[in-house]
Amino acid sequence: MEMRVGVIGYGYWGPNLVRNFVESPHFEVAAVSDLDESKRKRAKMRHPNVRVTARAEDLVNATDIDLVAIATPVHTHFDLAMAAIKAGKHVFVEKPITTTSEEALRLIDEADKRGVIVAVDHTFLFTGAVRKLKELVAKKALGNLYYYDSVRVNLGLFQTDVSVVCDLAVHDFSIIDYLFNARPETISANGTSHIPGSQKNVAYITVQHDSGLISHVNVNWLAPVKIRQTLIGGAEKMVVYDDMEPSEKVKIYDHGVTVATQPQSEEEILQMRIGYRKGDVLSPKLDTREALAVELDHLADCLSNNRMPINDGKLGARVVQMMEAAERSMCSNGAPVQLKTLM
Amino acid sequence: MEMRVGVIGYGYWGPNLVRNFVESPHFEVAAVSDLDESKRKRAKMRHPNVRVTARAEDLVNATDIDLVAIATPVHTHFDLAMAAIKAGKHVFVEKPITTTSEEALRLIDEADKRGVIVAVDHTFLFTGAVRKLKELVAKKALGNLYYYDSVRVNLGLFQTDVSVVCDLAVHDFSIIDYLFNARPETISANGTSHIPGSQKNVAYITVQHDSGLISHVNVNWLAPVKIRQTLIGGAEKMVVYDDMEPSEKVKIYDHGVTVATQPQSEEEILQMRIGYRKGDVLSPKLDTREALAVELDHLADCLSNNRMPINDGKLGARVVQMMEAAERSMCSNGAPVQLKTLM
Amino acid sequence: MEMRVGVIGYGYWGPNLVRNFVESPHFEVAAVSDLDESKRKRAKMRHPNVRVTARAEDLVNATDIDLVAIATPVHTHFDLAMAAIKAGKHVFVEKPITTTSEEALRLIDEADKRGVIVAVDHTFLFTGAVRKLKELVAKKALGNLYYYDSVRVNLGLFQTDVSVVCDLAVHDFSIIDYLFNARPETISANGTSHIPGSQKNVAYITVQHDSGLISHVNVNWLAPVKIRQTLIGGAEKMVVYDDMEPSEKVKIYDHGVTVATQPQSEEEILQMRIGYRKGDVLSPKLDTREALAVELDHLADCLSNNRMPINDGKLGARVVQMMEAAERSMCSNGAPVQLKTLM
Amino acid sequence: MEMRVGVIGYGYWGPNLVRNFVESPHFEVAAVSDLDESKRKRAKMRHPNVRVTARAEDLVNATDIDLVAIATPVHTHFDLAMAAIKAGKHVFVEKPITTTSEEALRLIDEADKRGVIVAVDHTFLFTGAVRKLKELVAKKALGNLYYYDSVRVNLGLFQTDVSVVCDLAVHDFSIIDYLFNARPETISANGTSHIPGSQKNVAYITVQHDSGLISHVNVNWLAPVKIRQTLIGGAEKMVVYDDMEPSEKVKIYDHGVTVATQPQSEEEILQMRIGYRKGDVLSPKLDTREALAVELDHLADCLSNNRMPINDGKLGARVVQMMEAAERSMCSNGAPVQLKTLM
Repeated sequence: MEMRVGVIGYGYWGPNLVRNFVESPHFEVAAVSDLDESKRKRAKMRHPNVRVTARAEDLVNATDIDLVAIATPVHTHFDLAMAAIKAGKHVFVEKPITTTSEEALRLIDEADKRGVIVAVDHTFLFTGAVRKLKELVAKKALGNLYYYDSVRVNLGLFQTDVSVVCDLAVHDFSIIDYLFNARPETISANGTSHIPGSQKNVAYITVQHDSGLISHVNVNWLAPVKIRQTLIGGAEKMVVYDDMEPSEKVKIYDHGVTVATQPQSEEEILQMRIGYRKGDVLSPKLDTREALAVELDHLADCLSNNRMPINDGKLGARVVQMMEAAERSMCSNGAPVQLKTLM
Repeated sequence: MEMRVGVIGYGYWGPNLVRNFVESPHFEVAAVSDLDESKRKRAKMRHPNVRVTARAEDLVNATDIDLVAIATPVHTHFDLAMAAIKAGKHVFVEKPITTTSEEALRLIDEADKRGVIVAVDHTFLFTGAVRKLKELVAKKALGNLYYYDSVRVNLGLFQTDVSVVCDLAVHDFSIIDYLFNARPETISANGTSHIPGSQKNVAYITVQHDSGLISHVNVNWLAPVKIRQTLIGGAEKMVVYDDMEPSEKVKIYDHGVTVATQPQSEEEILQMRIGYRKGDVLSPKLDTREALAVELDHLADCLSNNRMPINDGKLGARVVQMMEAAERSMCSNGAPVQLKTLM
Repeated sequence: MEMRVGVIGYGYWGPNLVRNFVESPHFEVAAVSDLDESKRKRAKMRHPNVRVTARAEDLVNATDIDLVAIATPVHTHFDLAMAAIKAGKHVFVEKPITTTSEEALRLIDEADKRGVIVAVDHTFLFTGAVRKLKELVAKKALGNLYYYDSVRVNLGLFQTDVSVVCDLAVHDFSIIDYLFNARPETISANGTSHIPGSQKNVAYITVQHDSGLISHVNVNWLAPVKIRQTLIGGAEKMVVYDDMEPSEKVKIYDHGVTVATQPQSEEEILQMRIGYRKGDVLSPKLDTREALAVELDHLADCLSNNRMPINDGKLGARVVQMMEAAERSMCSNGAPVQLKTLM
Repeated sequence: MEMRVGVIGYGYWGPNLVRNFVESPHFEVAAVSDLDESKRKRAKMRHPNVRVTARAEDLVNATDIDLVAIATPVHTHFDLAMAAIKAGKHVFVEKPITTTSEEALRLIDEADKRGVIVAVDHTFLFTGAVRKLKELVAKKALGNLYYYDSVRVNLGLFQTDVSVVCDLAVHDFSIIDYLFNARPETISANGTSHIPGSQKNVAYITVQHDSGLISHVNVNWLAPVKIRQTLIGGAEKMVVYDDMEPSEKVKIYDHGVTVATQPQSEEEILQMRIGYRKGDVLSPKLDTREALAVELDHLADCLSNNRMPINDGKLGARVVQMMEAAERSMCSNGAPVQLKTLM
């Protein structure tokens, strides 16, 4: 049985959504809406059999649509998603789910009442690399987790309505939430805006977790080179995840730390009783299927079995909560912001 | 005219000092001291004509020694340096100069009274790469300076008496102080210790400068790979300085940002009126002479002309002040620490 | 005025041709043919307004078609191209133009008689990187040319009808022909077939040119990693062209060789009177426009101005001549094969 | 029991030999000779207890010397080694053993008669990387061996008495001989000399082995970058050995080729019935001990147990035979030269 989809927004990401919904055996695209005429024309040209309209409400209210996908600017997510949920539709919304965690909680609440599903398009969770990392963490292959340290910088498009935190750090927040069962306790962030009148274009964010894990995210729209590199340290193994590598994106270092119980000599006491274990490096084969296609399979599976997707509204809300805390800490030069348990 | 040198400490770095002093036409090594007998034996074997002793005070009080070089654990720097200064000797001390900025100021004060010079061995300032960066900044080739962002991580030796900030971040603090005429206003730092009983082995430090520059330093003793990568962003050009590259360590990107004064269209207003200028990349030829040899030439020149070296006690004191602020901020999860003007 | 195009073959490369012809302002796609029904269906789905047929002769004979593009297996090129030429059509044929240089010459001859143009799709000549190299060579920036040395290996698709020379080395042959005014005098090649019944999957080819230039091409379908790296050495400068680099594909090394006229010492006589000049490295900005789109612009320009394209049949024939010589030399374990001047 | 060593030649490599012999528990350096006074002075300064002389014959004839190490220009190896053998000394000679294979055979013959050992300093065989490769090949981990393909280029010192083949390709010849039990049948080589009056500075050499293995060696003294990269292809696994990598020098790709016995479809017949198996990549931990120290341990072990070292005169002779064949083939632009079985 195919779900019928309406896609709101045919700008930067919308065409990818439409293409993947079209090629999925689980979905059928019934309609696309966009406020911009040239984008509607392009949609019509590429998909002559799909209804195209300027009015998002036509999709929200259509009786032949089961799922509304929302790929519009962030500040419009809440109203569109709420309308779709109230019309009894499932919702698949671009990241971040909303601009505030309070709005996110209201969407989740309404969806629960209506018995519909809200999924957030945190595409990175469905890449071969992150799924492999999840597998490693799940089987405790890295040992006790020490740190997650990510650099995500490039010469990026400035946007007026969102900062670099909302644009880039949001990816790491979703990965951190997904990979680790480690509640963030405090967030300390520093950032700055180098272009007058624009939002923050550089941000350095540190998250202290209850488990002793420390996460760090470095995002920058003004870097000369594109870097997508994450180090994950554990007591048993360490990982380098470099998304710019064409094929060997994940490397697992058999490097660990052994703390000797008895110091051997005075020199050892001075320089700690720590031994490093340096071993092989393994770069596991990764699934190279397009992440969005994997994500839609997961969504279809959850919809037909009435299960919550891993990228559900709650994960989306927690990600927004981290964004909020980071933005707040940046206003006071890094003063730590406590995170309360959302749900 | 040759200066006669006494080197206190023949452990990890001392042999490099002795070798470079020996090979310099400006210095002659008169004596070496170390508390450890095996190290004294090694010194004697390699340099049969040099006096070797267990007693540092022999060097401090020797009448045939003009300059005392100190390569001992950090907590011993102050007493040794103060004794040497009071004995009328010039001092060349390993980084960091002392454990507190207050001690550093006392050394500087005493040296001023005695008319001797205190230099701190911030070797990085004398590498071909950092000298090229200084040249670029000095001629304003990068334009208005936006950020300095450094990752300096590896599987490093744990030490009991100092943290990763004192071991690694100190390099970046000295480079930041040297390169930019930008007073640090606040420091926010987060870090953690993953090995019970040890000092911080991971630290993320952000410095807000009065000029609008933001500096960030990421140091880690538990990383699976060695990374020494610094990005420097300016309005006109941007730099990647990768010290692990065998030859092309510095790359200058002719990438800049142009802010349009008049928005052209509604789309442009939404996505900012910013244009990127992407141009050539230049990797300038660097001087490959050993940094320590260059540093000793500079020291000899300053000593014979009675000028202050660029790595004088004041720079050393400011570096220690940044360390202190970072350590203090780490105790309160990133709460910003104000830096007062030292001198 | 738009040229009307018929595209024969909608397999691996055909869809790229159709898409680029469709998006070009200079061309209009009238018809597509393919023997395979599923490929015809795909073409029809994507381009509902284009005639789709199983019969290539329909395109060759169509009165509304000016240019026939041929993207079929190599052994079919000659017959299809000859038929199109005889029908008075211009021809744009995939590389290599034909399986033998004799066939290529017959096509050129026939096209000359009919006053039509034959262009060969050597797409690499239109990349930003190769155009930059041409610019450097044209203005003699590298000085006297010493060598061209290319490694082009990967885990590639085995094909029954062609060897790795025809599949991969052909790219280098076209680049060598285009970049240098250096007639190949002899070709020596070695290769082998590791899979019983298949054509050569590894080949090492050396070309000696009349100018003193030596070219070397290393192609391999069984390499664990994808490498696309070319070194070009000149007396004044040297180039590394690495097509796998995401942005800095071309690096120009200001390295050269200086031969001293007078030996200075006995040591120098023994170790040659040669000095290396090591200088800056420049990575010039490259045009990132899709090469095929640039190529079609050039083709349109040549067609409307009745000029020969740089990738004309003659270049195509010389490339095939090099292929033939390489295959012949491989049969006798590297014995050199003389190349005669084709035209 | 310590062997007493005399080292002839204290130029570029001699000091490394002396230092490693001195630090070895198995050897003691009795004397060093060099024709150049400044080199003798340097030797004396560094090793005051070692006899230093201008006359190599003093070492050859000394009664207190068991092993003569020869680190002089290649053309002097034969006479010095022959004199030492005739004086009943063991010989450790720099690579290549001699300038001709005929000379090498005469040395081996004489050494056999006298009951002394001739070892050739093919240091690469004792690196952690090559020993790991030997281990992999020995346990047939790569499956049937397809190719060895090495690029060994840099901006190198020109020498008058030897070509780039003798300087660089010799390393690959020794590795090929050591790793594979595959007799070279023919060698085809091309090269050129770009500097008037100098020997070949570029060479491309292909070796066809009796087992079906094909080896290729690309050496160049005029390359802008230093490359030391070897690909080894097998039916089961493939290896990339990159000696410029700081730590992950050897990567083993679990990539192989599967030939289907029955073609499945017409398409498959056209594109061969070959499947690629792409799997994990493993970078094994390597021994990082200095190769020369490992080599001297092996030599000491062989000397005291009267066994032939892996780098014996016969391996040295086969390496010279490959050099001779390559030089000869280069004189006729790649015409293959047959290799006869030496011994």
